[in-house]
Amino acid sequence: MEETLAGRPLSSEDRRRLDNLHEKLSYEATTFLGYPCNSLFDYSPLYRFLGFTVNNVGDPYVPSNFHLNTHDFEREVLDVFRQLTHAPADSFWGYVSSGGTEGNMYGIFLGRELFPDGLVYYSEDTHYSVNKILRCLHVRNIMIRSQPDGRIDLEDLRETIRIHRDLPPIIFANAGTTMKGAVDDLDGIRRIFEDLAIQRHYIHVDAALSGMILPFVDDPQPWDFSGGADSLAISGHKMIGSPLPCGISLAKRSNVDRIARSIEYVGSLDTTILGSRNAITPLFLWYALRTVGLDGFRRRVEHCFETADYAIERLREIGRQAWRHRNSVTVVFDRPSLETINKWQLAAHNDVVHIITMPHVTRRQIDLLVDDVANDVANNPIVPAKETANP
Amino acid sequence: MEETLAGRPLSSEDRRRLDNLHEKLSYEATTFLGYPCNSLFDYSPLYRFLGFTVNNVGDPYVPSNFHLNTHDFEREVLDVFRQLTHAPADSFWGYVSSGGTEGNMYGIFLGRELFPDGLVYYSEDTHYSVNKILRCLHVRNIMIRSQPDGRIDLEDLRETIRIHRDLPPIIFANAGTTMKGAVDDLDGIRRIFEDLAIQRHYIHVDAALSGMILPFVDDPQPWDFSGGADSLAISGHKMIGSPLPCGISLAKRSNVDRIARSIEYVGSLDTTILGSRNAITPLFLWYALRTVGLDGFRRRVEHCFETADYAIERLREIGRQAWRHRNSVTVVFDRPSLETINKWQLAAHNDVVHIITMPHVTRRQIDLLVDDVANDVANNPIVPAKETANP
Repeated sequence: MEETLAGRPLSSEDRRRLDNLHEKLSYEATTFLGYPCNSLFDYSPLYRFLGFTVNNVGDPYVPSNFHLNTHDFEREVLDVFRQLTHAPADSFWGYVSSGGTEGNMYGIFLGRELFPDGLVYYSEDTHYSVNKILRCLHVRNIMIRSQPDGRIDLEDLRETIRIHRDLPPIIFANAGTTMKGAVDDLDGIRRIFEDLAIQRHYIHVDAALSGMILPFVDDPQPWDFSGGADSLAISGHKMIGSPLPCGISLAKRSNVDRIARSIEYVGSLDTTILGSRNAITPLFLWYALRTVGLDGFRRRVEHCFETADYAIERLREIGRQAWRHRNSVTVVFDRPSLETINKWQLAAHNDVVHIITMPHVTRRQIDLLVDDVANDVANNPIVPAKETANP
Repeated sequence: MEETLAGRPLSSEDRRRLDNLHEKLSYEATTFLGYPCNSLFDYSPLYRFLGFTVNNVGDPYVPSNFHLNTHDFEREVLDVFRQLTHAPADSFWGYVSSGGTEGNMYGIFLGRELFPDGLVYYSEDTHYSVNKILRCLHVRNIMIRSQPDGRIDLEDLRETIRIHRDLPPIIFANAGTTMKGAVDDLDGIRRIFEDLAIQRHYIHVDAALSGMILPFVDDPQPWDFSGGADSLAISGHKMIGSPLPCGISLAKRSNVDRIARSIEYVGSLDTTILGSRNAITPLFLWYALRTVGLDGFRRRVEHCFETADYAIERLREIGRQAWRHRNSVTVVFDRPSLETINKWQLAAHNDVVHIITMPHVTRRQIDLLVDDVANDVANNPIVPAKETANP
């Protein structure tokens, strides 16, 4: 009976389709320069856990009657991030999320619950998903101008907050903007609060990529709890790398508790945005942290900077403008031909594109890309920007 | 260099911890009767795809510059669900989500966008996550009484809608409530709309479990698009089974387009709630649909009913009240001792518990459970209900 229930083997045609997919992915992986997803990982020792109906449903810090979970490992991962983000040891909460959107939604949700009349401010360089998040959460919001380098324009922010001084500001800040890798100036934002005598405020930081870079540099821009953040979202499938998108959502326990009290009819268990939660990604993250180690991540980040500088040097040699922010692995340069953009899966925005020199990116790939850019028709026309979905 | 970047092997202590986890999960899996998650699956032929940084970011029907995706397979999965749910072929949209919460959030988000002044109604037997969803979406809502069998009380619904006749009703209906497997009466709900001459209305159906049962029975209760649903959420990790939580979110294309127009500044690509999306779960679902097949799922569902009836028979033999709804695999019975609840990971609510006879549940396990229930101290005191997180 069990045999019948388990199903029949895949047909040879279906097997061929999977083979084709594998071949296509193997090929596409060789030109994967435009997105911030590290592919230098091997989680095969953990595949055996995919035989279970594991589920980290609920709060990782609350015991569950659903025993098939990896909450222990999840809490260990969170404890590493507590240290990396300088969170107060006695007021910290978090969970491994499905990725950036959930983490950012959680942060803004928290801010909105603390300040129901709050007004959200975010720069025009913020990831496009912010619009969807703000719409879902039904919260008033204003987009602020960016500086040309991608950081939020503090003058525009100051004047806009001044006009709405009666409403608590909820700042959606970036530690590593999607396109240019810019880190919004948290010190500057806090000075605005001080200057305008604003005491009720909230700062959420989208540190999708840079949240795993800035802990490993000698001169980080302020970006974490010690820099004034009230909540943070960091991606797991970016600098760490994972075949399954995931993220780390972090907040101050005291704020989460204030919400928990106000919504206690929900039951204190329902503190995560998603209910059923992936139990494999916490294992992947734990494995990466244990095998690469924090010293290993420091070496990786240094290596990425070196690759980035090499790319900048090579692109400048062929007459292209190319640059990166301090502590960023995002190399911004003049938009090449559409063919080159497609081939190397470059993310494009207006007249610039970027590559992101993640750990898997080699100098050989940079050389090949630079050859393609050099061989583009000189002064190729700027084609209309075709924005595409961006992890 | 690459070798250093890739990291060192896991320490023997860490390997031992993983072995312990594997052993614990193997043990716990033998007493996994209380949750609706089928564990009869084997996706090992697909593990090779976990070597890629795959990501189904964005709309599965829109080409992406992020090439490492499985959108083709995802669309095939969706097409099967289009048929299973009797969706209009020319007005259908969907995506593979992270699970129930995202699918239900999407449905209510859609309803709220169509009817910004809408009022959400849901029964007290609705999954607890509805509170969080409604709070996130900031939408007015009223909880309706349930009948003792778990279905929404139509009289209470009718009277409550009558009082708020000026506001379009958005119904959060259940096809298979969490605790009792009840299917809310969609025909009755639509009759209320007719009687009260309400033409602007929306019905979202949470068909987490029964969405993969009702397509395979001869006499399904109305539950899908043909029964009046405007959107549906079905779980992938429940009747199909998956080590990674996932779901299928389905809606009418015409409604999605109406929203897309109203929020076009977001960019038409950002139609899914989460941005980065798991590309492996669509492959798992595709694989299950191809290897088990729809005929296989019909056999599975029949088998589950037989196991459920066997459990009811055995529990009644030892003097316990036990029952199930027509077309449900959820067997509700008198609350046993806390020890038995914990051992068999039973979901408890007030004075009842349930087991869910998923495909992996055997008669041998039922016998062992019934022995434990029979050996419980007679008339054991009803301990205070300890609600726990529920997938």
